[in-house]
Amino acid sequence: MAVGCYDFPVMPIVAGISLGTTIAGIKQNVRDDIVVIELNEQASCAAVFTQNAFCAAPVLVARANLLHSPRWLLINSGNANAGTGDQGMLDALASCTELAAKVGGNAQQVLPFSTGVIGQPLPIEKLTAALPDAIKDLSEGHWEKAARAIMTTDTFPKGISKTITISGQTITFNGIAKGAGMIQPNMATMLGFIATDAQIEQRLLQECLLEAVEQSFNLITVDGDTSTNDACVVMATGQTLVPAIQKNSVAYKEFMAGLIAVCKQLAELIIRDGEGATKLIRIVVSDALTEQEAIHVGKTIAHSPLVKTAFFASDPNWGRILAAVGRAGIEQMRLDTVQIYLDDVCIVKNGARADDYTEVAGQKVMNQSEIMVTVNLGRGNACQEVLTCDFSYDYVKINAEYRT
Amino acid sequence: MAVGCYDFPVMPIVAGISLGTTIAGIKQNVRDDIVVIELNEQASCAAVFTQNAFCAAPVLVARANLLHSPRWLLINSGNANAGTGDQGMLDALASCTELAAKVGGNAQQVLPFSTGVIGQPLPIEKLTAALPDAIKDLSEGHWEKAARAIMTTDTFPKGISKTITISGQTITFNGIAKGAGMIQPNMATMLGFIATDAQIEQRLLQECLLEAVEQSFNLITVDGDTSTNDACVVMATGQTLVPAIQKNSVAYKEFMAGLIAVCKQLAELIIRDGEGATKLIRIVVSDALTEQEAIHVGKTIAHSPLVKTAFFASDPNWGRILAAVGRAGIEQMRLDTVQIYLDDVCIVKNGARADDYTEVAGQKVMNQSEIMVTVNLGRGNACQEVLTCDFSYDYVKINAEYRT
Repeated sequence: MAVGCYDFPVMPIVAGISLGTTIAGIKQNVRDDIVVIELNEQASCAAVFTQNAFCAAPVLVARANLLHSPRWLLINSGNANAGTGDQGMLDALASCTELAAKVGGNAQQVLPFSTGVIGQPLPIEKLTAALPDAIKDLSEGHWEKAARAIMTTDTFPKGISKTITISGQTITFNGIAKGAGMIQPNMATMLGFIATDAQIEQRLLQECLLEAVEQSFNLITVDGDTSTNDACVVMATGQTLVPAIQKNSVAYKEFMAGLIAVCKQLAELIIRDGEGATKLIRIVVSDALTEQEAIHVGKTIAHSPLVKTAFFASDPNWGRILAAVGRAGIEQMRLDTVQIYLDDVCIVKNGARADDYTEVAGQKVMNQSEIMVTVNLGRGNACQEVLTCDFSYDYVKINAEYRT
Repeated sequence: MAVGCYDFPVMPIVAGISLGTTIAGIKQNVRDDIVVIELNEQASCAAVFTQNAFCAAPVLVARANLLHSPRWLLINSGNANAGTGDQGMLDALASCTELAAKVGGNAQQVLPFSTGVIGQPLPIEKLTAALPDAIKDLSEGHWEKAARAIMTTDTFPKGISKTITISGQTITFNGIAKGAGMIQPNMATMLGFIATDAQIEQRLLQECLLEAVEQSFNLITVDGDTSTNDACVVMATGQTLVPAIQKNSVAYKEFMAGLIAVCKQLAELIIRDGEGATKLIRIVVSDALTEQEAIHVGKTIAHSPLVKTAFFASDPNWGRILAAVGRAGIEQMRLDTVQIYLDDVCIVKNGARADDYTEVAGQKVMNQSEIMVTVNLGRGNACQEVLTCDFSYDYVKINAEYRT
């Protein structure tokens, strides 16, 4: 039930990165559900993780192992290994040990990731038994297979590829992600894996990732629930001919722009595949005092079940948008400076219904599958965009039937 | 689709209070949609209002007129007179002037209240034309009629009556309320009107109301959306033989207990009638550091669409509850001190699935229409209860079709 058309792109290889997948039987339906990613020895690797206080065992292990020059990523779908106590921690560590033994590496060089149902023991024997097949499957061409293997309630695999040119040489970015529900990434994201052949030192790469995530995954929400397992990783293999990227250089700016573009496009794909989504809503909050205020107001609108059901019904019920802005808890908020637009139709002017607004004009915009809502607060110069989707019968259905 | 059985109670009169209703034609379906309440001259009257920054015109007028010893309340359903700009303000003031002229009073002694669709002009001529009929209808016995006339998406009228005895004399409380959606009262509530024959000075009555609302309406949520029109009024006619209530006296404590009980029961009726609700969920957060922390964690759980859809599906998916607690943003939250119960079934012990928990035991509780979730944070002594309901197909349906 995705919004808009999207075909998984033809993705080039990123020299230095191989991916292998197989069926471990962790998912109920028989599908690839584990992925091994192997990085070349020179690769640098950065990552951000969920800010949920009850983060899953693999998040704790991956966060610690990030300091040990990771060479392998091990991802399973179908089970989150969250809320699993000490056993969950032992299982996450064991998965690293098992993979390291089979590839001749060090367990600390493995980053584990899990996504799926919370609170059920990770079937570690199944996972271990499947590792040889996944390793045998390693290939530089398996991006789409990997994107499919990390899916849970996603209805389509999500991948974005982009190249940039620096000093006449090409740098490639490949990114894959999963996510459809329990989506309000907070300083991190769902699962996202981005690879580039750029040369860039780990600490700088980490800075780049933080900034890119702030401008992409942290500005989307499906349901306001931040997952226990969110993580986003960027791997830079250094296999390009472009010299190592230095902070604040021209190359740095190009690299950042490329990374941000990939993250933004992946984030948008997640919203297009939001659970039960029939519409993609871009909420632009402009003339706010600060960017933080713009994001906060945008997310308050984006989280309102009343706003989201009105979008599902294609009902230009702007009173609900206004009520959401009003309850956002912004100090000294004034109604008489607020303007609201649906695409280019002005619906609220100076806090009240615009004189020339007609329901017909509002209805026309609401019937679209992609809608931009602009809320101009008239109190500053900051502007931010938050992406969300509508709230449909299918959202309830998908989440009511998730474990059955 | 209310949860549990409830019959509107036989309500005694409260000496000094008369209520009249009629059909003004503001609602689309032909039903009583305006109420006039007349208070005796000695009555004191206290009120709290929505904290939504974009509160409706009648809220602004009622808040100002509260200082002028109100004698009349004028309530309409079917139109919120919110987001209606200057005209909305003129209409709210005109409604007071018109009523005052017809009853021989002062416009400043009228408190206006509106509830219904946001952003459409109040049909003031219809309202004015209906006033004589409503005034003619004034009677001390019309509590149920008034409770019905203020309904919008409510499926049943809500009233609670209670008497207490002080020094051998009786004090009566009658309360009516409306509300089913856009419910997360914040320092105020939906619409609630409570009358008592107690004698109590206005300033003290205002203090009492604030405290009672904190302990009742401010601890419920249907969908996290705070309305632009919330208000709760308490009117004390002083017609009892009990002497005027003085702060911190024994009588004061009895009075407060009575008022809180009425507010709590009305608040619970609103949740039982939550839009699309099939279950009443009591979320008790115990062993929190502060009461505020307990409420915050309780509301984070209560607002999670994933938790609410799991309750709708009778799915003991406690991982979603745990994830919601984890994303509540509480500093230094530790997973290993958290216990979660469904009624008396321990489901999470020290942050992980309890050893003796079985899905059968969890399922049995989830099948009930009333469920208590207890989350013990293990970090303090504070405890609070938040009431909410589940999230069903009908919630989406009701809100998708609200204006059609």
